[in-house]
Amino acid sequence: MRFAAVLLTLVFSAAAFSAEDTDGPRYTASGSLMMPANYREWIFLSSGLGMTYGPNAPAPDAPQRFDNVFVNRTAYQSFQKTGIWPDKTVFVLEIRASQSKGSINQAGHFQTGVAAIEAEVKDGGKWTFFGFGAGDSAKEAKPFPRTERCYTCHAQNGAVDNTFVQFYPTLLPVAKAKGTFKDPEPK
Amino acid sequence: MRFAAVLLTLVFSAAAFSAEDTDGPRYTASGSLMMPANYREWIFLSSGLGMTYGPNAPAPDAPQRFDNVFVNRTAYQSFQKTGIWPDKTVFVLEIRASQSKGSINQAGHFQTGVAAIEAEVKDGGKWTFFGFGAGDSAKEAKPFPRTERCYTCHAQNGAVDNTFVQFYPTLLPVAKAKGTFKDPEPK
Repeated sequence: MRFAAVLLTLVFSAAAFSAEDTDGPRYTASGSLMMPANYREWIFLSSGLGMTYGPNAPAPDAPQRFDNVFVNRTAYQSFQKTGIWPDKTVFVLEIRASQSKGSINQAGHFQTGVAAIEAEVKDGGKWTFFGFGAGDSAKEAKPFPRTERCYTCHAQNGAVDNTFVQFYPTLLPVAKAKGTFKDPEPK
Repeated sequence: MRFAAVLLTLVFSAAAFSAEDTDGPRYTASGSLMMPANYREWIFLSSGLGMTYGPNAPAPDAPQRFDNVFVNRTAYQSFQKTGIWPDKTVFVLEIRASQSKGSINQAGHFQTGVAAIEAEVKDGGKWTFFGFGAGDSAKEAKPFPRTERCYTCHAQNGAVDNTFVQFYPTLLPVAKAKGTFKDPEPK
């Protein structure tokens, strides 16, 4: 009886572990990407402030925003071993407002509310971008049309397979070691 | 036989899951904190750039640095339910250099190499700070003496139990909902 109870516990533990492990993309019937509920518990890749490049360049006088990049744990673990992104990779780009004076902080910038959330998903060997729009209440996102500049910019300038690994300091050495790093500005 | 193999798999899965779950502090025999090998897989709380407060204020003309804050998963899950930090909470403060021009980036800042790593650990109901120093190769850190200003600054100004939850946008509403948020500047 005690053995059966232990066995049952093990079965449920293993099942729970397995369920947490399915962190790939989920879609609505109409093909929208469902917001990954727990992306803040995924792997943090890096954060920038006021980054200015390609189609995402902010206006010179716009307030500076932070961009936090997360990737699902399963894809991250695969990348650590191979230097490439497996199918069902999900990147979440979380854009947050910044504030300078607040509490005891006097200068520099810290993060405040969500301004927008976007996602980049590899599925069926193909990358697709999704925009959840402003705020953090959106629950699903339609794909950006393939004519949007994000597609060409990522394809041309992403150091590894449509992703900006050149800006993710912990992944950059992995990609270089695995030989998958493509310098977008060869010297 | 097949059942036995399945059982064995379950046992090992459960054991592996359990091992990953022990993310509390580990010490050397002399009381130094051992570097948590996988803190980059912990929960990311926030990142700031050039934050200027108390004893950590940088010189006005110093290059701006990012500070990434991570907390161990077990403590984070407990905080989500209670709004307080359990014993064996480990915060890692990772300080990184910033760069403005690089690859296709023209302005703003992105993160580059590690400048220093520090930790704040709650153990036996008491918080202790540790400094791993420059670079990312340090494997252990001695505790900062209790006369260091980090102790008084965190105790006086941390919104929740010696921690700066006022700067962690996803934890702030949790602490407010649980009634554990202490405004360091009451109005």
